Amino acid sequence: MAKSRFEYVKQFERENFLLPDTYLIVRVDGKGFHKFSEEYEFSKPNDIRALKVMNKAAQNLMGQFPDIMMAYGDSDEYSFLLRKKCSLFERREMKLVSTFASFISVNYLHEWNLEFPEKPIKLERLPTFDARVVVYPTTQHIRDYFSWRQVDCHINNLYNTTFWTLVIKGGMTGKEAENRLLGTVSSDKNEILFKEFGINYNNESEIFKKGTILVREYDYTREGDDLSKRQQQRVEKQRKKALIEEYHLDIIGDTFWNERPWLLE
Amino acid sequence: MAKSRFEYVKQFERENFLLPDTYLIVRVDGKGFHKFSEEYEFSKPNDIRALKVMNKAAQNLMGQFPDIMMAYGDSDEYSFLLRKKCSLFERREMKLVSTFASFISVNYLHEWNLEFPEKPIKLERLPTFDARVVVYPTTQHIRDYFSWRQVDCHINNLYNTTFWTLVIKGGMTGKEAENRLLGTVSSDKNEILFKEFGINYNNESEIFKKGTILVREYDYTREGDDLSKRQQQRVEKQRKKALIEEYHLDIIGDTFWNERPWLLE
Amino acid sequence: MAKSRFEYVKQFERENFLLPDTYLIVRVDGKGFHKFSEEYEFSKPNDIRALKVMNKAAQNLMGQFPDIMMAYGDSDEYSFLLRKKCSLFERREMKLVSTFASFISVNYLHEWNLEFPEKPIKLERLPTFDARVVVYPTTQHIRDYFSWRQVDCHINNLYNTTFWTLVIKGGMTGKEAENRLLGTVSSDKNEILFKEFGINYNNESEIFKKGTILVREYDYTREGDDLSKRQQQRVEKQRKKALIEEYHLDIIGDTFWNERPWLLE
Amino acid sequence: MAKSRFEYVKQFERENFLLPDTYLIVRVDGKGFHKFSEEYEFSKPNDIRALKVMNKAAQNLMGQFPDIMMAYGDSDEYSFLLRKKCSLFERREMKLVSTFASFISVNYLHEWNLEFPEKPIKLERLPTFDARVVVYPTTQHIRDYFSWRQVDCHINNLYNTTFWTLVIKGGMTGKEAENRLLGTVSSDKNEILFKEFGINYNNESEIFKKGTILVREYDYTREGDDLSKRQQQRVEKQRKKALIEEYHLDIIGDTFWNERPWLLE
Repeated sequence: MAKSRFEYVKQFERENFLLPDTYLIVRVDGKGFHKFSEEYEFSKPNDIRALKVMNKAAQNLMGQFPDIMMAYGDSDEYSFLLRKKCSLFERREMKLVSTFASFISVNYLHEWNLEFPEKPIKLERLPTFDARVVVYPTTQHIRDYFSWRQVDCHINNLYNTTFWTLVIKGGMTGKEAENRLLGTVSSDKNEILFKEFGINYNNESEIFKKGTILVREYDYTREGDDLSKRQQQRVEKQRKKALIEEYHLDIIGDTFWNERPWLLE
Repeated sequence: MAKSRFEYVKQFERENFLLPDTYLIVRVDGKGFHKFSEEYEFSKPNDIRALKVMNKAAQNLMGQFPDIMMAYGDSDEYSFLLRKKCSLFERREMKLVSTFASFISVNYLHEWNLEFPEKPIKLERLPTFDARVVVYPTTQHIRDYFSWRQVDCHINNLYNTTFWTLVIKGGMTGKEAENRLLGTVSSDKNEILFKEFGINYNNESEIFKKGTILVREYDYTREGDDLSKRQQQRVEKQRKKALIEEYHLDIIGDTFWNERPWLLE
Repeated sequence: MAKSRFEYVKQFERENFLLPDTYLIVRVDGKGFHKFSEEYEFSKPNDIRALKVMNKAAQNLMGQFPDIMMAYGDSDEYSFLLRKKCSLFERREMKLVSTFASFISVNYLHEWNLEFPEKPIKLERLPTFDARVVVYPTTQHIRDYFSWRQVDCHINNLYNTTFWTLVIKGGMTGKEAENRLLGTVSSDKNEILFKEFGINYNNESEIFKKGTILVREYDYTREGDDLSKRQQQRVEKQRKKALIEEYHLDIIGDTFWNERPWLLE
Repeated sequence: MAKSRFEYVKQFERENFLLPDTYLIVRVDGKGFHKFSEEYEFSKPNDIRALKVMNKAAQNLMGQFPDIMMAYGDSDEYSFLLRKKCSLFERREMKLVSTFASFISVNYLHEWNLEFPEKPIKLERLPTFDARVVVYPTTQHIRDYFSWRQVDCHINNLYNTTFWTLVIKGGMTGKEAENRLLGTVSSDKNEILFKEFGINYNNESEIFKKGTILVREYDYTREGDDLSKRQQQRVEKQRKKALIEEYHLDIIGDTFWNERPWLLE
């Protein structure tokens, strides 16, 4: 029953129920993290403790939502894969993105406060994130999506590593380093690092080169339409209790995926 | 230029650009705040300090986005009115709701930590919010929208005040109080409060009965299509620097709106 | 009850319910009418009998749907204005555009067969139309929308009149006429017509210069939320029985609209 | 360049680009065909000549759009399957449904005029259709979709056959026949037909029992991402020139699909 004659305004609400039986990827992205990293004096090119905060926040989020099968993160962004049969929030778009943005933000702030007691967060520069959700129909799209993000991570990290080496060890200004790198390809950057600074990029930490992969690991039983209600509930329970493991390895090739068939079942 | 052959996956992204020249209302809503209020032992029926945290968080958000003309909040929800000409994030739906959910969440957590040093937030019970955005074509809809929320605040607060009085002062269990209130109308609840406990509901604090209204107050100059570029920039600057005032008064009648014509210009 | 286990596929259907309390404009547009006009040897620059077919088809459509307050057409396109309170097909987008496209198409074909018995339509070149619907929040948008279409009609007709005069009376090839008009403005075209061919563009038929306006004319009683059920039904009945008048006049200025306040009530 | 200051109204147009790499099914549905069939005195329970008109119209449509791989029709509705890689109208929803509704309507009218010269169509009862498009991610959904429609055809045809036999041969009124069939299952209806009227439903025409399947038949070469540009063009050409065959057979089982792997490639 309407509580007042004003309640008609609810009729203007619109919902986008995302297509059933498709993979969903929610990507969260830090807002203004360039300035954030300056404000809180991140180590350059990578701040391992800040990455740890980000990874911990993502782990917490994954712990909350058993429909997330895996996640991939790098720098201030993270992508979460929701399984095809996921019916979280009835697959409502706004509910999904706003909730994920909220969770990642408060978890980041909370973990930051634990990790960096010496760097208290200021009101003017709180960590915030936006989020988007994308619908993908096939496993191939999911493979390609994560390959896209990992290639991106590689490109950015090679650039940043070279840039900051030129600045920190090479004594260049930012502008000079930028100009030096203009038009260079990967091999050029590898060469700068090796010839001028004796750095072998291959020896850099995997977490920087490959990003972070979070996987819900569990004793795999194939889910399917042919499972009884009771069997489905058991699988669901397994999913909830599954350990969330952290990796820093290649997800472009087949090995990672072949070893974890449940991710794309 | 595509950085890799995987980049085609971006083509699956979809955007909902909300209709131009319409009012937008973003409503954020606390997730699981019933349990949150139990975990952190809120005063009942209302915890003035927790409300203060919420109001402060909403104020901070409003300070960030000058397109927000006013906001109305009550309990764990807040509605933000964006002006018709607002082009924040190109009016992209997911960007708007995820950003607002993120901002309100971290600001709430941040303000909580300042207000309640004696009640540290636990990882298992972080404050989180979802958000939705609704498009309204006319000023009448906006008036009715805020009336809807304020009526709702009144109904809930009268119920909660009576319920908790029956429990705290009347010694009832929650179940008994619930049964006592089943089928009662407003006048019944007023009578219970008055006759049985000597409480005149009208004397309750305005912030509980009316909720909180935040208003961007500024020396009003009519904005319009006929303003020069320079004039528009001046108005925009005014908006950014405008004080954000907090009120607890009736917004169903005309007075509030007549005194602030710029809100619905 | 589900008739078969296959019925779940209905869950993939999506509906876009267009925002309530806004004007809707459905615009239908002929597909491949350039070739259509060649196939059936339209008179150039305008074929008055083909225009008559188009106008008749639009009139029939308007007769079917009393929610259409007015329409504006020119060449092979027509725009239909649906009133703000219109709830035709629950304002479902696909239903609206597919139905309008269907109606205009069969009516065009039907009227063509009556008007042009000497030019039977061939299977390979049937008259077809697509349709789109656009949501507009205010009366100003509607005024500007129709101004946009009428300006467009004027620009196209002036161009076509000059082009075909150069070809038919001036003996130019299409390519030559095209080159002659490259970079010319309105006054140039008026001058070509007048100086070279003694044609005063102002004396051309109004239907060519202004397009066609169809208006649901009825004894105006203001509709509003304050009308009783019975009064509303009477107004609705009036609307259904209203005459649909055809005009060829200016709709950019205020006169047309001031004389018909019910169009944008 | 904007031709006038009114052109901003185009910014209110919205497009829904349907998800790439998914099957699309466009279903057209006759509007008010119950009355249409009464007006033009269709034979009952099925009018084979009217079905022929419908099938011919669908064939014409399929001839126009080589992206349609197959179609299934029954009574006054038809479903068209567009291949996964289809980029017709950039997969814009309104464009697709309005165009399909337009094509089927004028083709139906055109074919009707050829088939039924003795039953001229009246202006007040033109054949019109609406259309919707649905996105399906996998081949299983497509199989289930067509099974759904064919089961529906069977259920309706068995009902109609029994109903009209009771009326025409049994002398019942429509109301009496309706009551007689209330609560009956398939076997009941089969028994009525057989015991009371000596009709073996299995001997009814396949076109009535199974509906009509239109298939684009062509010498199958697998399409794929690994085809060269030239090979793709050849496949596309094949598709355009492919014969469109008409069948009336079971599409619920595997046989039909196994024999035509290109339909769901």
